[in-house]
Amino acid sequence: MRAVSCPLCGAAASALRRSTLAAVVADRYPVAAGHLLVLPLRHCGRLVDLDDEERADLWALVHDTLDAPPPVVGEADGWTVGVNDGAAAGQVIDHVHVHLIPRRAGDVSDPRGGVRWVLGAKAPWWDDVGVDDASRHR
Amino acid sequence: MRAVSCPLCGAAASALRRSTLAAVVADRYPVAAGHLLVLPLRHCGRLVDLDDEERADLWALVHDTLDAPPPVVGEADGWTVGVNDGAAAGQVIDHVHVHLIPRRAGDVSDPRGGVRWVLGAKAPWWDDVGVDDASRHR
Repeated sequence: MRAVSCPLCGAAASALRRSTLAAVVADRYPVAAGHLLVLPLRHCGRLVDLDDEERADLWALVHDTLDAPPPVVGEADGWTVGVNDGAAAGQVIDHVHVHLIPRRAGDVSDPRGGVRWVLGAKAPWWDDVGVDDASRHR
Repeated sequence: MRAVSCPLCGAAASALRRSTLAAVVADRYPVAAGHLLVLPLRHCGRLVDLDDEERADLWALVHDTLDAPPPVVGEADGWTVGVNDGAAAGQVIDHVHVHLIPRRAGDVSDPRGGVRWVLGAKAPWWDDVGVDDASRHR
């Protein structure tokens, strides 16, 4: 099961939380305090490589973690939940992992768009259609 | 069920694919060709607001879509899969939606990091630890 030199295959040993087929670990290079990864225990490169049971277990663990984050997270006003699925999407480690990045109000000057910014300049659309602050999620 | 002025509550009418509790629609302001959204039919603001059945159905539909994308997607080398969960994470429309953004090799000069870039300068870690191209997902 363990791929040679895969840093995430061994990560479950330091899991903050476990389910049958998945684990939650701290990201080793966090972009925010409490940045977590949720990953299948089995070494799988891409989301489509997961079987149905693994998939269901992985996302259930993601939701369980959002519902009741481990203490390391502290306060969070929101979450960036994301997968870089494939090298073209920025995947660096060849083992599926879901980023759970705690977000705090003010951590960037304007958070709107979020994951849309992986592709840069096309991200903002709200100015074009007159979306203002009143329509944003609170 | 339908929230006043929620643009996603009505989106299921133009769904590219449906499941019992969720739908796939085209993003109206795509950052890439074939940019999709997967969303619960019920108006829910945050991931934690989904019940277990909705959650399971939503992510099953995400995976079904990655397994067999609708024709509008065309070729994709990878996917950014992400949720802006809460205004602090960039959520603009108050109805849960999973972004499925098709990625193509070369669409950005260096895709590494992907969703980590929602928080900018802390995203790159690979240079610090000597990760090179050989270790990247293929």
